[in-house]
Amino acid sequence: MKMATVDNGTPDGTLVTVSDDLAHCARAGLSLQHLLDGWEDADLPEPSAAPFDPTDALAPLPRAPQFLDGSAYLNHVELVRRARGAEMPERLWSDPLMYQGCSAPCLAAQAPIVCDPGWGTDFEAEIAVITGPVPRGASPKQAAAAIRLVCLINDISLRLLIPDELSKGFGFVQSKPPSAFSPVAATPEALPGWSEGRLSGILRVDLNDEPFGRADAGVGMAFDFAQLIAHAARTRDLPAGTIIGSGTVSNAGKDGPGRPVAQGGVGYSCIAEQRMIETIESGAPKTPFLRPGDRVRIWMEDADGRSIFGAIEQTVVPA
Amino acid sequence: MKMATVDNGTPDGTLVTVSDDLAHCARAGLSLQHLLDGWEDADLPEPSAAPFDPTDALAPLPRAPQFLDGSAYLNHVELVRRARGAEMPERLWSDPLMYQGCSAPCLAAQAPIVCDPGWGTDFEAEIAVITGPVPRGASPKQAAAAIRLVCLINDISLRLLIPDELSKGFGFVQSKPPSAFSPVAATPEALPGWSEGRLSGILRVDLNDEPFGRADAGVGMAFDFAQLIAHAARTRDLPAGTIIGSGTVSNAGKDGPGRPVAQGGVGYSCIAEQRMIETIESGAPKTPFLRPGDRVRIWMEDADGRSIFGAIEQTVVPA
Repeated sequence: MKMATVDNGTPDGTLVTVSDDLAHCARAGLSLQHLLDGWEDADLPEPSAAPFDPTDALAPLPRAPQFLDGSAYLNHVELVRRARGAEMPERLWSDPLMYQGCSAPCLAAQAPIVCDPGWGTDFEAEIAVITGPVPRGASPKQAAAAIRLVCLINDISLRLLIPDELSKGFGFVQSKPPSAFSPVAATPEALPGWSEGRLSGILRVDLNDEPFGRADAGVGMAFDFAQLIAHAARTRDLPAGTIIGSGTVSNAGKDGPGRPVAQGGVGYSCIAEQRMIETIESGAPKTPFLRPGDRVRIWMEDADGRSIFGAIEQTVVPA
Repeated sequence: MKMATVDNGTPDGTLVTVSDDLAHCARAGLSLQHLLDGWEDADLPEPSAAPFDPTDALAPLPRAPQFLDGSAYLNHVELVRRARGAEMPERLWSDPLMYQGCSAPCLAAQAPIVCDPGWGTDFEAEIAVITGPVPRGASPKQAAAAIRLVCLINDISLRLLIPDELSKGFGFVQSKPPSAFSPVAATPEALPGWSEGRLSGILRVDLNDEPFGRADAGVGMAFDFAQLIAHAARTRDLPAGTIIGSGTVSNAGKDGPGRPVAQGGVGYSCIAEQRMIETIESGAPKTPFLRPGDRVRIWMEDADGRSIFGAIEQTVVPA
């Protein structure tokens, strides 16, 4: 089943069920948060003849109770750390990197990206899951059973603020503003590419209508979502509506960190990785961070070329 | 005005207004989150003859959209950093330390503290404010006008997990489990000790019925709440219901970092600071972290000795 949230004048919006081809929908008469609070009792309408327009959608949870973002694609971690002169510790292969992110507001797929010249604004295309309640100390198996929905996110990152903020030792606040979400979220059962806590398939990223990233989300994810959820729940209960992010999707190449799309590679799901490759190859980055007027598009397609979650389509505007 | 949230079987609970002496209450017919979403339209009942029992209260917001915790008392920052061998950078006098914390669940004042022998479980007594909506880039003056309520929190900290987690560079997740909240929150106007974004008055902390902390929350707070909110809002809108913490209340002494209550000082609002003092004085800490059966009590009193917010009263239980 697929679903989306549309505006009804309340902070949480109201839920619609959406047809598999994203063409039709039906009002469910409650918010997604309310549905998640009592998921077992759900009696949702089948999508009707009413048309669905993905550009009308809010984030599935416009204000979620919690967002914990992992960094499960270690090719990304290695490249971004190298870019800021930091080491990639061996332990990150067994102990997931994760930060507590901003869960409210969660931005709509069409929300503008606010950009200040001093921020070094970047996108990060990720997969995310939305959970039901998870008890403290849950095993990965228990965690897997709590996965309710899957969607895409753009975890906007302010690269030029990150080194200074992280040097204070307490993680991201100002350097990770709110993230944008795909118009549609889908249950794992509705996703042929879902298997054992990972979603396979090309995560498509275009920058200004040119292909920028074509990485496979099923490749290079060192921890599956069940492991990420269990990590998050080690010392706390997770409430229904918790969002767990995969971290920036990133595929290594056969003999290194991959290549940009323009050089025949699968490219990258954020600008920072491509800048690192440019630095390695030529001593300096060439691709600028986002500037007003830039357009970012993030989506996935099924085997027939149809959009699975609808597209995150954001235009950059000045702060 | 004072208010509290009591259980009605829903995740957000239901709001009651509470008399100034915490003896009586009246049902408001909505949740605090709903009230905050439309604060200007509020028409709340006066507390009636119905008795109020603070031990029945949930957290004011059992699931808040966001919790950002500052570290405004730099005596605490300096002591805790010294305890783990880290430096106190000069810039922390002008650039607030702040981390994105767990906003859901927010624990009730009577919730047990779950404790594992390997965690080094500690309390941290703090002041917190709950805001209305704050636009991105708000000035401290705008931020001050968005402060809706003030309360107390126990920001439970797992000291033995912190150094390892922070060394990964992304801040706290496992080492900062959910915080507990005072039964009652009060508008700034209802607090004689509130002035210019700070709350003056003794923050009382007892450990196992012995005085442990008697620091004045109005002393040593290097950044007021308006500055902390503006810091949090630099690159994001803050939704109604955002909780901003002060950090552990801590008073320096006349000629150093203060003294334990047993030595005639005002003591500390967390065990870690007292352990650091012991280490400085005798080479090793003496006070253990929390163990099953320990009892922590955190409260403030008005000039007549009446509890202002009710007490956070937690007993430690094994994980």
